[in-house]
Amino acid sequence: MAKWVYSFGDGKAEGKAAMKALLGGKGANLAEMSNLGLPVPPGFTISTEACTHYYANSKKLPRDLKPQVEAALKKVGRLAARSFGDRKNPLLVSVRSGARASMPGMMDTVLNLGLNDSTVEALAKNVDARFAFDSYRRFIQMYSNVVLDIDHHHFEEVLDGYKEERGFSLDTDLSADDWREIVKRYKALVQSEHHAPFPQDPHKQLWGAIGAVFGSWMNQRAITYRRLHNIPESWGTAVNVQAMVFGNMGEDSATGVAFTRDPSTGEKTLYGEFLVNAQGEDVVAGIRTPQDLTEVARKKAKSDKPSLEALMPKLYKQFVKTADTLERHYTDMQDLEFTIERGKLFMLQARSGKRTAKAALRIAVEMAKERLITREEAVARIEPMALDQLLHPTLDPNAARTVIASGLPASPGAASGEITFSADEAEAMKAQGKKVILVRIETSPEDIHGMHAAEGILTTRGGMTSHAAVVARGMGKPCVSGAGALRVDYAKRELSAGPHKLKAGDILTIDGSTGQVLLGRVSMLQPELSGEFNTLMQWADGMRRLGVRANADTPADAKAARNFGAEGIGLCRTEHMFFDADRILAMREMILADDEKGRRAALAKLLPMQREDFTALFETMQGQPVTIRLLDPPLHEFLPHSDEEIAEVAQSMGADPEKLRGRAQELSEFNPMLGFRGCRLAIAYPEIAEMQARAIFEAAVAAGKKTGKPVVPEVMVPLIATKIEFDLVKARIDAMAEAVAIESRFKVNYQVGTMIELPRAALRAAEIAESAEFFSYGTNDLTQTAFGISRDDAATFLGTYVERGVLAKDPFVTIDREGVGELVQIATERGRSVRPDLKLGICGEHGGDPASVAFCHEIGLDYVSCSPFRVPIARLAAAQAAIADKGKKPKAKAKKRAKKRRR
Amino acid sequence: MAKWVYSFGDGKAEGKAAMKALLGGKGANLAEMSNLGLPVPPGFTISTEACTHYYANSKKLPRDLKPQVEAALKKVGRLAARSFGDRKNPLLVSVRSGARASMPGMMDTVLNLGLNDSTVEALAKNVDARFAFDSYRRFIQMYSNVVLDIDHHHFEEVLDGYKEERGFSLDTDLSADDWREIVKRYKALVQSEHHAPFPQDPHKQLWGAIGAVFGSWMNQRAITYRRLHNIPESWGTAVNVQAMVFGNMGEDSATGVAFTRDPSTGEKTLYGEFLVNAQGEDVVAGIRTPQDLTEVARKKAKSDKPSLEALMPKLYKQFVKTADTLERHYTDMQDLEFTIERGKLFMLQARSGKRTAKAALRIAVEMAKERLITREEAVARIEPMALDQLLHPTLDPNAARTVIASGLPASPGAASGEITFSADEAEAMKAQGKKVILVRIETSPEDIHGMHAAEGILTTRGGMTSHAAVVARGMGKPCVSGAGALRVDYAKRELSAGPHKLKAGDILTIDGSTGQVLLGRVSMLQPELSGEFNTLMQWADGMRRLGVRANADTPADAKAARNFGAEGIGLCRTEHMFFDADRILAMREMILADDEKGRRAALAKLLPMQREDFTALFETMQGQPVTIRLLDPPLHEFLPHSDEEIAEVAQSMGADPEKLRGRAQELSEFNPMLGFRGCRLAIAYPEIAEMQARAIFEAAVAAGKKTGKPVVPEVMVPLIATKIEFDLVKARIDAMAEAVAIESRFKVNYQVGTMIELPRAALRAAEIAESAEFFSYGTNDLTQTAFGISRDDAATFLGTYVERGVLAKDPFVTIDREGVGELVQIATERGRSVRPDLKLGICGEHGGDPASVAFCHEIGLDYVSCSPFRVPIARLAAAQAAIADKGKKPKAKAKKRAKKRRR
Repeated sequence: MAKWVYSFGDGKAEGKAAMKALLGGKGANLAEMSNLGLPVPPGFTISTEACTHYYANSKKLPRDLKPQVEAALKKVGRLAARSFGDRKNPLLVSVRSGARASMPGMMDTVLNLGLNDSTVEALAKNVDARFAFDSYRRFIQMYSNVVLDIDHHHFEEVLDGYKEERGFSLDTDLSADDWREIVKRYKALVQSEHHAPFPQDPHKQLWGAIGAVFGSWMNQRAITYRRLHNIPESWGTAVNVQAMVFGNMGEDSATGVAFTRDPSTGEKTLYGEFLVNAQGEDVVAGIRTPQDLTEVARKKAKSDKPSLEALMPKLYKQFVKTADTLERHYTDMQDLEFTIERGKLFMLQARSGKRTAKAALRIAVEMAKERLITREEAVARIEPMALDQLLHPTLDPNAARTVIASGLPASPGAASGEITFSADEAEAMKAQGKKVILVRIETSPEDIHGMHAAEGILTTRGGMTSHAAVVARGMGKPCVSGAGALRVDYAKRELSAGPHKLKAGDILTIDGSTGQVLLGRVSMLQPELSGEFNTLMQWADGMRRLGVRANADTPADAKAARNFGAEGIGLCRTEHMFFDADRILAMREMILADDEKGRRAALAKLLPMQREDFTALFETMQGQPVTIRLLDPPLHEFLPHSDEEIAEVAQSMGADPEKLRGRAQELSEFNPMLGFRGCRLAIAYPEIAEMQARAIFEAAVAAGKKTGKPVVPEVMVPLIATKIEFDLVKARIDAMAEAVAIESRFKVNYQVGTMIELPRAALRAAEIAESAEFFSYGTNDLTQTAFGISRDDAATFLGTYVERGVLAKDPFVTIDREGVGELVQIATERGRSVRPDLKLGICGEHGGDPASVAFCHEIGLDYVSCSPFRVPIARLAAAQAAIADKGKKPKAKAKKRAKKRRR
Repeated sequence: MAKWVYSFGDGKAEGKAAMKALLGGKGANLAEMSNLGLPVPPGFTISTEACTHYYANSKKLPRDLKPQVEAALKKVGRLAARSFGDRKNPLLVSVRSGARASMPGMMDTVLNLGLNDSTVEALAKNVDARFAFDSYRRFIQMYSNVVLDIDHHHFEEVLDGYKEERGFSLDTDLSADDWREIVKRYKALVQSEHHAPFPQDPHKQLWGAIGAVFGSWMNQRAITYRRLHNIPESWGTAVNVQAMVFGNMGEDSATGVAFTRDPSTGEKTLYGEFLVNAQGEDVVAGIRTPQDLTEVARKKAKSDKPSLEALMPKLYKQFVKTADTLERHYTDMQDLEFTIERGKLFMLQARSGKRTAKAALRIAVEMAKERLITREEAVARIEPMALDQLLHPTLDPNAARTVIASGLPASPGAASGEITFSADEAEAMKAQGKKVILVRIETSPEDIHGMHAAEGILTTRGGMTSHAAVVARGMGKPCVSGAGALRVDYAKRELSAGPHKLKAGDILTIDGSTGQVLLGRVSMLQPELSGEFNTLMQWADGMRRLGVRANADTPADAKAARNFGAEGIGLCRTEHMFFDADRILAMREMILADDEKGRRAALAKLLPMQREDFTALFETMQGQPVTIRLLDPPLHEFLPHSDEEIAEVAQSMGADPEKLRGRAQELSEFNPMLGFRGCRLAIAYPEIAEMQARAIFEAAVAAGKKTGKPVVPEVMVPLIATKIEFDLVKARIDAMAEAVAIESRFKVNYQVGTMIELPRAALRAAEIAESAEFFSYGTNDLTQTAFGISRDDAATFLGTYVERGVLAKDPFVTIDREGVGELVQIATERGRSVRPDLKLGICGEHGGDPASVAFCHEIGLDYVSCSPFRVPIARLAAAQAAIADKGKKPKAKAKKRAKKRRR
C-alpha cells in the first residue's frame, strides 16, 4: 500500500526537512520542527504524490488515501486531546497547500474546518460564544469561497447589510448573537447560491477542502506564478491538515510573523510583527496595523503600541530561543509564523525567508563570517538576478523633490514612471516601451503580471509583509506600501494626496527605501555597492573560472563596466558611434558616394572621430582586452526614410533629395536581419573596414603610449558564414596593422577573430578557426537564425509560445541549450580541434543570464560578455557554475588549459 | 628535371587522350590522333603544369622549359622537313591554348608564327608571293593584338585606308605587292604603337606567344566563361605549338570543320562545312558562306556550291574514314577541324562535339543501340540541365505569324522577348524580370553574360558554327544566326527588315529550330518529347534509386508533372490557392475577424474551395502520394497595403478601412521571413489548420471513392523549430482525420510530417521524428537561415560573392554541401536513428538541380521534389548519381532498406 500521509506533532514526525519534494516546503518544515521538539500543533501532510495521482487520474484521489487520513486524524485528535466532529470537545483543523517551492497566496487555504451547527456550540461553551460564532462565520465564508466557489462579495454584502440594519460600523461592534445571526444568514446564502445546505459533516468538509487545495494547484494565479518563477507543473502541491490554534482567544492570545534577520537590510535582529487577539490572516491582510516584536524596533518605528518583548516577556524569550534554534538548524534566515493561544506559543511555519538582495548579501556574508555556512555556500546562496535590484538607481539627495505622501519602505530602490491603476494596463504600456508605476489600493495575486511590468509598485494599504511588499521584494522592484494618506479612485483613474490630484499617465516617483511618494520625475544616483557586496563578489571571483567582460560602446559604458568588475570589453559596437549628429552626416556622405573615391573621402572625415573613440576606450580599459566589432548593421539604418526626413537631410547635406531617396530605396530590404550587413559590407566596401582598422591601430598606439599599458585590440569581423569572407576582411585588417606599424614605428599586438552568429559558421568552425584567433558567440543572431525567429517580430507569438509551454523559456533570454547550445558546442569543439588556444566568449544578451552563464562554463568558454549592469550577475553566476561543477570530476587538463587561456 | 613538353606527329606521340588534365583537351587529342596514325601536323604541347607554375611564380615560366621547347621544335622541323627561322625553308607554327575543358574562343591563338622579313621571302619563293605577304600581314596583326596588345582596329584602319587610296573594295582585289605594302605599313604601325619594331626573331616571337596564351587564361572573358561553366581556375591551360598547314595555298587547298553526327538533330550523318583556298578562321568567322561537305547536305540546303564529296572525292573518302575511326575510337560524336594543303589532308583537331540536347539524346541512344556504348554510358552522358532546352516551348503552328526575316536555325527552341542590342542591357533587363532577345550583328565572347540573360539570340551574320550558334547551343538557348536581311543600327537602337522598323524594347519572337524571325509575341506549344528522350528516361528510371516528385499546387501543375514522369507531389503549397479573387475575400475576412468564431465563419467559406482543390489534385495523381503543406506565409501577404488598395478592398468587403489598415500594420513585420508564419499560424489559430486538414481528408475520401485508388495524403507542417510545435499541430490534424472518418464512415490512411527548414529542427530531428512520419527538407529556408541570407535581398551581394569566389556556387541554386548539407545529413541520421522508416525528401529548388540531386542520393534520401519542368532533369540526375555510386561498394542493408521505403 502506498504511503500518502505523514503525521507530525508531539516532538516527532514521520517526515523531515529533506523530504520537501514529497511533503512540500511547509509540510517538511512542520515535520522538521516537530522532530526538533518545537511546539507545533499536531497534524499530518498528504504528499505531493497524491496530487500527482490526482491529476494523472482525472482529478480522482487515491483510493487508499481515505483510511490513512482517518488514522492520521485520530492521532491528531489524541495529541490535541480533542476529537474531530466531537460535540463536546471538537478538533478543528486548518487545511493548507504546501508546494516544494514557496508560492505565497497562490493556492487555497481553509481554516477552522470541523465547525458546524453542533461543534460551534461546544466551542462557545468551552471558550467563548462570540469567538465561536465569529470563527464559524469566517469558516463558512472561506470554505464556501474555496470549495463551493461562492464569491466573497456575497458574504460581505450580507455582513454590510446586517451592520447597516443595526447601525454598526466596526466588526468589533458585533456581539455573539449578532454573529449567530450572521451565521444563519450565511447558511441561507449558501443554500441559495449552492442549491444545497452548507455541509455539516466535518469529514465531508475535510474532503471538500483537500480536493479544493489540490484543485488550486492549477488555478490561473498559480500557473502564472509558476511560469514567472520557473516552477514545474509536475511538482504538485502537498496538503497540510493541522490542529487549529487560535490567536484570537482573547488578550492572552496573539499571532504574528517574524524573520530571524531583517529581510530588507539583512541586519542580525529579530524582525516581525504581531497582533493581540487576532488570527494570522489579520497580520498579513494589513487591515489592523501590527505591533513590533522587539522594543528596539518599536522605538525605531516610534510606535506607541507595546512590543511582544514588553507585553509577554516570557513567551518572547521562548520565541527568540526557538527562532535561534531554527536559524542554526537550517543555517538560513527563517520566516516564521507563530500563534499564542491563551499564553501558549505554537510555531505554525518555518521556512527560508524571502529577502532583498541587499539583505541576502549581508546575511550570506555574515553567516559565512559566523561560520554558520562556508564561503562557497554563501556565494551559492545569492540568486544572481537578485543583484539587479542592488544596481538600481536611488534618488539623488540633492534633487529638488515634492513629497506628496509617505508609506512603508517595502522594497528598496527608486523608480519613476507613468501612473497606471490596472495590472493589464501596466503590461500593455510596458509592451509599448513605457515605464509605469502600478498604483493599487492593495495588490493581489491577480496583479502579478502588472507588477512584473511596472518599474515600481505603490499601495495605499498593507504592511511590510503585505502581498505587494513580499512580491515586490521577490521581484527586486521598488515598492512603497500602505501610503494611507493617498486616495485612489479607480473609476476616475485618479490618485489624490491632499491638494495634489494625479491622473493616470502622470509621472510619479517612488522611493522604496524610504517609503516616499514624489511628484514627477526625480533625478537618481547610481547605487553605491555595500561592503558585503564587494566581499561576496571577491569570494565569487576567487571561485569562478569564466572571465567576465562587458559589452560597452563608449568610454562611459566602459567606466561603468570596470566599476562593476568587468575584466575587459567583449563587444564594442562601432556603429553606435556613427549616430552622433556630426558623424551621421559623414556616414551618409559615404553611403551616397558614387564610387570608392567618394566613399574614402567621407571615411576620411570619420577616421579621426573613430580614432578618438577608440583611444578613450583603450585608455579607460588600461590594457585590458577590448573586442571591437566592425560595422555591422545594414547601411539603410543610417539613412532617413520619410519624405520629410529625406528633404531635411538632403538640405543639410547639400545633396539631391531624389538621390537620397533612391539610395534609401536601393538599400531597403525585405529581411534586413538577413541582408546586406556584417562582413558583407566589408567585402563590398573594404574601405570601411580599412578605416575602422586604421582607427583601431592608431588608437592602440596612442593609448598604449599614454597609459604605458600596451593595448592588445581584438578586431572582430561580424556575420561570417564562410572562411573566405573572414580571410578577405582579415587581409585588409592585417594590411592596415602593418601600415600603421610602419607609420608609427610602433608594433601593436592584436588579434583578429569573428562573431559566430550564423549556423553555417558554427558548423564550419574548424576551417574558420584556421584563420580566426578568437570566436565570440553572437547568440542573439544565432538564436534568430537557428529558430527562424526575428526578435523584432517575435512578440506576436513568442509570449504565447512560452505560456503554452512550447518553449520552456524565452530563448532570447536564456540560451536554448538543445538547439542553439548545440551549435555553440559544435563550434567550440571544432574550433578548438584546429586551434587549441582559440579564445572563446559569448557576447549576446545571454552573457548576463545566469542559466546561460552556467552553460558557458560547462562547455568551457573563456569568458562571457554582458551589459555593464549585468557584470556582477555574470560574475556571481560564473562562480556558482564553478561551485556546481566542483562535485563533478573536473578534467584536470582541460581546466589548466582553460586557465591559461583566460586573461 | 620536370617534363613540361610533350611531342606528337608522324604516327606517334608522347601523350595520349587520357592525359587531358596535363595536356589539355586539344593537346591530348592531337597526341591521340597521332598515335592512331592519322595525318596530324607535327607539334608539341606545353603542359598545364607549366601554366600552374607560371601563375604560382609571379608569371614566370619554368627555367627548364626553354631547352625542352627548343628540342621539341627541332623535332617538329625534322618531321615537317622545315626549320624554324630558316631563310630557305622556314617552319611556321601555330600557338594555341588548350584547357582541360573546351573554352571556345576564350583564350588567345597566334597563327603563322615564324614569319619575318626574311622567312616571308622564302615563303613567297617556295609557294606564292601573294599568299606569303597576306599570311605575314595576318600574322603581324594577330601577334600584335595578342602579344603586344595593339587593338585590331588600328590595323583595320590601315587596310581600309590603303584600299580607299587604291580604289579597292575587296581583299581579293589586293595583289602581292599591295600586301607587301600593307606589311610595311603594319610594321610602322607597330613601331609607333609599341615603341619598338615588330619582333623579327622567330624564337622571340614564340616565347611572346607562349606567354600570351598562358596570360589569356586569366583574361576577363575566360574568367567569366569558367564561372558560367564551373571550370576551376586551378586547371590552367596547355599551349599547343604545331606546324602550320595552309588551306589557302590555292584551289587544291581547303579548310573545314565537321561533326561526325548532326549536332542539332543527332542524325548519324557527316555534318560540316568547308571553304576552298581559305584558312580555318574564315569558316568560323562566317564572312564567306561555306560549302557543304556532303552531296546530301548540299541538296538539302539547295546550295549551288559543290560539296567536298563532289569536289575532292578521294580526299572526301579519306576524311570520312578518318571521322569514322575517330568516332569509334572515342565512342562519341566528334567535332573535327581539318585542312587540305595542296591536296593533302591534315587533321587539326578532334574533340567531343557540342550538341543540342535533342542531338545528345539521339546520339546517346543510337550509340547504345549500335553497341558503341552501354546504356549506362548513354545515360551518364546526357548533361541533365541540357534537357531544359527540350522542354522549351515551340511556336504554335496554327498561330498567326509575321515572318520578317529568316536566318540559320542555330539553336533549337523558340523565344519571345523585348529587343535589346547590348549584353549589359540584356543583363540589366533580366534583373528587372524582363524577358529579352539579344540582337547583335555578331556575338563575341564579351557578350556571354548577355546571352546568358537573354531568352534567345539573334545575329545578322555568322553561320551554324559561329560564336553565337556554338555558345547558344551550349546554353540551350534558342538562336537564329546569320539573318542577313536584317539591318542593325546600334546607335539608333533599331532593327530593320524591309518596311519593318523595330526599336529596342519592341517584342520579337525567334524560332531557333527553323531560323524564322517574327514580329511580336507568337503563341507557343509545349514540346513533344522525342522517342529517344523516352527511351533514355526509361533507362534512367531503371537505374535510379531516388524517387522523383514534383512541386505542384494545381491540378494543371500536377498533370504536367505526371507527363514529365513525376511519381507524386512532394510539395503542394496551399497558400497559392487563397489568392484567387473569390477566395482572398474570405481569407481577408478571416484575418480581420475579432475572434475565433469570426475566423471559423470565414474559414467555413474556404473549406469547400480547398476541398475541391484537393479532390482535383488527388484525382489527377491517381493514388500517387501527395504532400500538402499547411498555410505557410505571413498573413499580411493576403492584406492590401497601399492606401488605395486598402480603400478598395474595404469597400468591396464592406469593412472599415481603418480596421483593415490597423490589422495590416499590426501584422507587418521587420523580417517576415523570420516572422509570424508557418506552424506559428497553426498554433495561434488552430482553426486554420483544422479547416485545411478537414478539406484534405474529405477530399481524400471523395477522390479515393471516385478513382478507386486509395489516397494516402501526407500532411506537412511547416517551419517547425521544436517537437512540441509539431505535436500541437499534429493533434489537430489527427482529430480532424478522426472526425472525417466518423462522418464519412471511411478511414483514410495518412501521414503527418514536417518540413525541416530551420537549423534547430535539423539538430532536434531525433525528437521530432518521434512524432513525424516524414521529413521534407525545405532547403530554400534552410539555406536562408544557415547562411543568414535573405533570398529576396541577396542580389546586392550574392553575385559579387560568387564572382569573387567567396561562394563557389549560388547556394540557392546548388546545395551548400558543407553547411546546409551537413544540417540535412545530421537531420537524416538523427531522424532515422529514432524512426528507421522515416520517409525523407527534399522540396526546395535544389530538388531540380543535378549536383544537389546527387547529394540527395548520396545521403540516402527517398525522393527529391522539384518543379514539373525539372522532373526529367531530376530523374536523369538521380540515375547518374546511382551510376556514379555503383563503383563504390554499396551497403547492401542500407540500400535494401531504402528501396523498401521508396514508393
